[in-house]
Amino acid sequence: MSASSGGITSPKGFLASGLHAGIKQRPLLDLALIVSVKPGPIAGLFTMNRVAAAPVVLGRRQLLHGLGRAVLINSGNANACTGARGIADAEALVRRVARALQADTRTVYMGSTGVIGRPLPVERIARSIPALVNALSRSGGARAARAILTTDKKEKEIAFSAHIGGHVVTVGGMAKGSGMIHPRMATMLAYLSTDAVIARPLLQQALRHAVDRSFNCISVDGDTSTNDTVLCLANGLAGNQPLRKDSRGFSVFQRLLASVCHELAQRICRDGEGVTKVVDVRVKGARTAQEARRVADAIATSSLVKTALFGEDANWGRIMAAIGRAGVPIDPTRIALAIDGIPIVKRGAGLGAPAERRIAQAVCRSAFPVTIDLGRGTGAANVWTTDLSYEYVKINASYRS
Amino acid sequence: MSASSGGITSPKGFLASGLHAGIKQRPLLDLALIVSVKPGPIAGLFTMNRVAAAPVVLGRRQLLHGLGRAVLINSGNANACTGARGIADAEALVRRVARALQADTRTVYMGSTGVIGRPLPVERIARSIPALVNALSRSGGARAARAILTTDKKEKEIAFSAHIGGHVVTVGGMAKGSGMIHPRMATMLAYLSTDAVIARPLLQQALRHAVDRSFNCISVDGDTSTNDTVLCLANGLAGNQPLRKDSRGFSVFQRLLASVCHELAQRICRDGEGVTKVVDVRVKGARTAQEARRVADAIATSSLVKTALFGEDANWGRIMAAIGRAGVPIDPTRIALAIDGIPIVKRGAGLGAPAERRIAQAVCRSAFPVTIDLGRGTGAANVWTTDLSYEYVKINASYRS
Repeated sequence: MSASSGGITSPKGFLASGLHAGIKQRPLLDLALIVSVKPGPIAGLFTMNRVAAAPVVLGRRQLLHGLGRAVLINSGNANACTGARGIADAEALVRRVARALQADTRTVYMGSTGVIGRPLPVERIARSIPALVNALSRSGGARAARAILTTDKKEKEIAFSAHIGGHVVTVGGMAKGSGMIHPRMATMLAYLSTDAVIARPLLQQALRHAVDRSFNCISVDGDTSTNDTVLCLANGLAGNQPLRKDSRGFSVFQRLLASVCHELAQRICRDGEGVTKVVDVRVKGARTAQEARRVADAIATSSLVKTALFGEDANWGRIMAAIGRAGVPIDPTRIALAIDGIPIVKRGAGLGAPAERRIAQAVCRSAFPVTIDLGRGTGAANVWTTDLSYEYVKINASYRS
Repeated sequence: MSASSGGITSPKGFLASGLHAGIKQRPLLDLALIVSVKPGPIAGLFTMNRVAAAPVVLGRRQLLHGLGRAVLINSGNANACTGARGIADAEALVRRVARALQADTRTVYMGSTGVIGRPLPVERIARSIPALVNALSRSGGARAARAILTTDKKEKEIAFSAHIGGHVVTVGGMAKGSGMIHPRMATMLAYLSTDAVIARPLLQQALRHAVDRSFNCISVDGDTSTNDTVLCLANGLAGNQPLRKDSRGFSVFQRLLASVCHELAQRICRDGEGVTKVVDVRVKGARTAQEARRVADAIATSSLVKTALFGEDANWGRIMAAIGRAGVPIDPTRIALAIDGIPIVKRGAGLGAPAERRIAQAVCRSAFPVTIDLGRGTGAANVWTTDLSYEYVKINASYRS
């Protein structure tokens, strides 16, 4: 398996483009298009938020048909809480793209991210579609990746390739994250492309597997957005034998897809709003994986833990307090806690000043693990979390201004 | 019912004192004592956090005996995650106080707040007990209220009186809050005193009622501490007929107690770490009160909602997003939302620019309600929350430094 410097257009037969349509006030790219030269199976996962944005409602419906050809994505406006009009707007734009590409309307998807509750500037977007289609190219991935960003600082794209039965199969991807980043479809948009020959049910299974171990394991601020979407388009141009369940080829493909998702998720964390640190919260010794996950989530979403991380304060007491309120019937006297591999709590009690001094250095690093053993069983889970900084407050206090 | 400028020593027969024992490094008051001239029924509620501090473990045990005479409280050290030693330390101090007051050890309680995981400086505290007992006075409430503070800016004390069957009955109280403030015993210490004649079970019932409607309805940062405690001592010196369940006298007493708790809870919110705003999140139209509470909690603990409040940004989309991820099967198209009484969302969709302009002014106020109607039933709940400011991050990034 090899990583490339590529992205969404790295697999064969994918084109992309990005431009400034005027949705954002500042002259930044705000409209992206991803197109496969031929339609193919598509897999998708959407936000668990009950207040789902219009493009999510539309996307869920399109996914019933199972074929994907193109995705139009805008930033600067989430098209959420926009009622029936929001859905009609997304439908109208999807029809426009389908017409321009001479594609079946049911194979065109839309994604939106930005402010909630404002009508989408449909005319402005529609007017930009011809230019967007004209600009489609094999090297347009970087502009597309930039056009979907909101408060992200960097575009996030990656591609991995591997040989499957003598054919080079590639999975590429791009994502935006930054705020509202929390497990259960980590509040973000991610678009994945592959040239693998694979049937839709298997593609969906591989995507679920990859997302559960990547985007669903990161937390920036505990908020789940109305717009979370992961789509994966497969056009079959690699020419491999169709992948079969339980085959070696499928497991290689699954690893490729998981690697792309993992790398994008990590970059979302590192580029989270105001983030200065990424911490891997590893919980083991729980009765079940679910129980471990609850404890990891309680730690990963605690404002007190996150501000202490920002302050580079080894205040492990806040981690203990978060464990205690996770709603799991733990026995505090069985808890062991280590920061960056250095034990600081045994049987629920602190290990004193020498351990504290060693940890004081560890917490100054930009990434380190926090390991918790609950001493109850063999369930384990991990969540990547970030610190909570002045910058996070600044970004989010003035997001719309 | 009349409010007084008093506090914990306003009811007959209560004395208090506060001094600097050297637990905090800066020369601030850090040790308080509350004493009733005679023992009487005591009611108590403690943190739901499974990692309970030593004074909480001890307090739960003492409460089985049901009589209260005195409470020793220190700030600067939480005596949490301190293992068996922490409990032995609290026991030793309780014995010292009991001896100095010639009281039964089982009637003396201890409270602690501050950094987790450091051993209590027992000798330093023990040495200060004679001076603390000597300083006890009817006017010592203010010093006691100051001695229990950590990052709080102001001491919080209040008293209310009413006539019950021709006797003046008073309930007084003091509290500390500031950080780790979240429902389910709102991460704080509160001590209440009354001269009412009341049996222990009824006192416990009245306290539970009052706490559920006050301390359990506030949220500063979503974290529940290891040390939360509410204790209420009753010495019976008001001379009223013993209060009976379902009597008018009891309902007056209940109102007194509820008023004291409500006022202390409000002051904890207003004095929360870095707080510039207090917002009353009111959810109605849920299937059940529990469901309403889940939605209110999701809004009240959302970092994105709280930073928008700080930025005085009427970003109601973040409130909608929080509602959607509360884990309640709401129908978004039935949601109505008003900010400071001004409708901004109907049937799940925004009402547009004129409403937004009116709300832009409302969110600049220091307190206002946010009202959500889920359109599912008659269940209702409310939670007071606060904004999330630079100051909160600053306080919590450098708490131990």
